[in-house]
Formats: sequence, structure tokens, C-alpha cells
Amino acid sequence: MTGKVFFSVSMSLDGFSAPESMEGILATPEQREQDPRLQHWMAQWMKLQAWAFPLRFFRENLKLGEGGEEGRENDVARETFERTGASVMGKRMFDLGERSWPEEAPFHTPVFVVTHTERDPWERPGGTTFHFVNDGIEHALDQAREAAGERDVRIAGGSATILQYLNAGLVDEFSIALSPVLFGAGTRLFDGVDASRIALEPVRSEPSSRVTHLTYAVRSC
Amino acid sequence: MTGKVFFSVSMSLDGFSAPESMEGILATPEQREQDPRLQHWMAQWMKLQAWAFPLRFFRENLKLGEGGEEGRENDVARETFERTGASVMGKRMFDLGERSWPEEAPFHTPVFVVTHTERDPWERPGGTTFHFVNDGIEHALDQAREAAGERDVRIAGGSATILQYLNAGLVDEFSIALSPVLFGAGTRLFDGVDASRIALEPVRSEPSSRVTHLTYAVRSC
Repeated sequence: MTGKVFFSVSMSLDGFSAPESMEGILATPEQREQDPRLQHWMAQWMKLQAWAFPLRFFRENLKLGEGGEEGRENDVARETFERTGASVMGKRMFDLGERSWPEEAPFHTPVFVVTHTERDPWERPGGTTFHFVNDGIEHALDQAREAAGERDVRIAGGSATILQYLNAGLVDEFSIALSPVLFGAGTRLFDGVDASRIALEPVRSEPSSRVTHLTYAVRSC
Repeated sequence: MTGKVFFSVSMSLDGFSAPESMEGILATPEQREQDPRLQHWMAQWMKLQAWAFPLRFFRENLKLGEGGEEGRENDVARETFERTGASVMGKRMFDLGERSWPEEAPFHTPVFVVTHTERDPWERPGGTTFHFVNDGIEHALDQAREAAGERDVRIAGGSATILQYLNAGLVDEFSIALSPVLFGAGTRLFDGVDASRIALEPVRSEPSSRVTHLTYAVRSC
């Protein structure tokens, strides 16, 4: 028995999963801390993720201290974490995270990074080990499946990587935390989706006070 | 006491409220019935609206015959109709509807069409009268408010007209029937939204077997 392949992201009501492209920002790492674009990016990103910050699970997982909200919202976040036996992510998400995650990265499982860069596995305290896969999305997924065992594989992001897996018919299910915010510009989660090949079946739709948690099964057609 | 100004539309999960632009199709009305683009448009549009067709209210309102599904989904459709004392629509939606609505148009209230075309009011059997307003969106809304009395004014569409009202700070509330479909291309509901001036407050999120009904209050900021 193997697990499912899924992704789980926050999305604005107008379809954005990140504010603006990080391209320009990542191109100038040395100026990054002073870059007002990064500050804007963070402010927008925090709006999108605002539902998660107060949760007990979020605080616990990032070692931000005691306390935090419990309840159904917190359970959703914890369940997403607990079902995940391994993650796959794109190079850009890793590059950003490498500079932003705490030393104890928040995955606590193997993570497979799809990249052209060759690099030895990078082991972090707390159980997260990053493996750098140079031979494409399918091999990265194969390795993640094996590492996950009976648990699920999460395509962690970013949007471009998620879309590659979705369009390749490799995603079984996905969840969206639909945030009550309009961005007007940014990175669209489904930009470039091959709509003619993908049919969705609603699995679950769960309102909370802050966002609506939507889950769909993916059928290739 | 006056009513609210609202809109209520179906939207694909990737943010489209209509398949592709109707511009080219409307430019050639004489070839329209044979135009495969219109057939594609209708097929896509029907996917978006699929939740509404089986409803008792929908069949009743369009005089499609007896029967149809009852239950919460049907109540939502009926409540949207019953709260509406007058509608406002753009010229393109009217042009399309003029060719598509049955003789007894499905509004059963005054409808104010924002247009540069001068034309006498067009009264249809069943209580729908179309008024053609040539002096802008605010005047059209003023007239609709007066006609609606204590009931609400619905900005019926299309997307461009809805966005004009939203960006002008004239919308109090809106509802979206979020359909489990990805379009990949088409007319985006929120394309051109002035995101810096609009904040949303979740009012209601109601899942049904086919779509999720989302309602937000709009705060200008």
C-alpha cells in the first residue's frame, strides 16, 4: 500500500499563491535584507498565511513558543503535517527557504529538491534531510514515495513545481486554504494548467472563521 | 432603509467567470449559430453553471417545466432571486442575453443596462423591463436603488461591469459559487481589481455537493 501524492497551499480568492515573482529578489541576495520588494512580498505573503500563524501547531512546529489556538483549524494543519512522509519541492522554494527556515527546518521528514545543482544531502537537526535530485520530477517523486512508505507525499511548492506535477498527471488530491484577500497581481497557482486533461471531484469543503479549506481529487482525462 | 448592492456569480477554481472572450463571437452575429467558438463557449459555461441547472428554482424561473431538485442549494438560488429588487448589467451581457433569454426574461424586476446606446425601455412579459442608462455606472445604480426600494440591487454582470462597481467602492457584498473546474483561460472575474483599496470579510462559506458558496463583505480601504 502506498500513499497519495498531494499538495496543500493557501490561495487568494483571485487565484494567487504568492504575491509577486521572487525572481528579481533572489537575483540580488546580498541586498536582500534591505530590498523593499522583499518586505512587500513578506507582508503580502503573511496576509495569505494569516490563518496559520495563530495556531498551536504552527507555533510548535516552528518552535515559536508555547500556546496558540486549538480547534478544527489547528487540526487541519496538524493532519496535513502528519500525513506527510516526504516532500518534494522546486529549486526556488528551496533557495528561499534555505535562507528563511530555522535551523530545525519544519519538515521533519526527507525532502527531495528538484534541481540542476548537484549537492550532497543536507541534514538538519529535527529529522529534515534535503536530497538534491538532478534527473527530473518523476525520479524525485519515485524517491519521495519510497521514503514516505505508507504515508503521503506532499508536493510542497512552489507553484511552478506544483503545476509540473499536476499537468503530468502525478497528483492524486489537493487542498487549498482559500484566503479572503484579493492580490490583483502575483504568482497564480494554476497559471499554465492543462485544463483539458484535468477533471476535479470535490472531496471536502470546510469553512472556518478565517479561510475555507477546499479539497479536490484529481482525475486525468 | 435601503438594500445592499451585491453580485453573485459562478467562478472556476482558477478564477474565471466566463470561458473565453465573447468579443469575436458577438462581432459576427449572422454566423453565430454555426460558430464552433460559441459551441465551445456554451459547453464551458455550462460546466461553470452545472450546479444550477438541476434546481427546481432554475427550471421554474426559466419555465423549463416541473420538477427539479429541492434542498439547500435550491434555497440559495431562490434567496438570491428574492432579495433582488433591481439589477444592473453591462452592454455586452445584455447583447448576449437579448439573443438568449426566453421571451419572459428571467429577472422579473427592472434591469438597468449601462450603455452608450440610446433606446426606449424594453418591457418583457413577466415583469422584466430593461432601461438603458447612458450617463455612467453611478446613475445606473442610483436608478436601480430607487427601483429596488428596500430590496437589494444585484450587479448582474458581466465581469467588466462588476469590476467597475467593485473598484468604485459601490459593492457591499458578493457571493461566489466556486465550481470544481479549472478553465486555464477565459475571462477572470477579478482581472484588474484595485486590490490596494479593497478588503474582504468572510460572511459565510457553505459547502454543497457540487460547489462551495462563498459570501464576503467588501470594505473600502
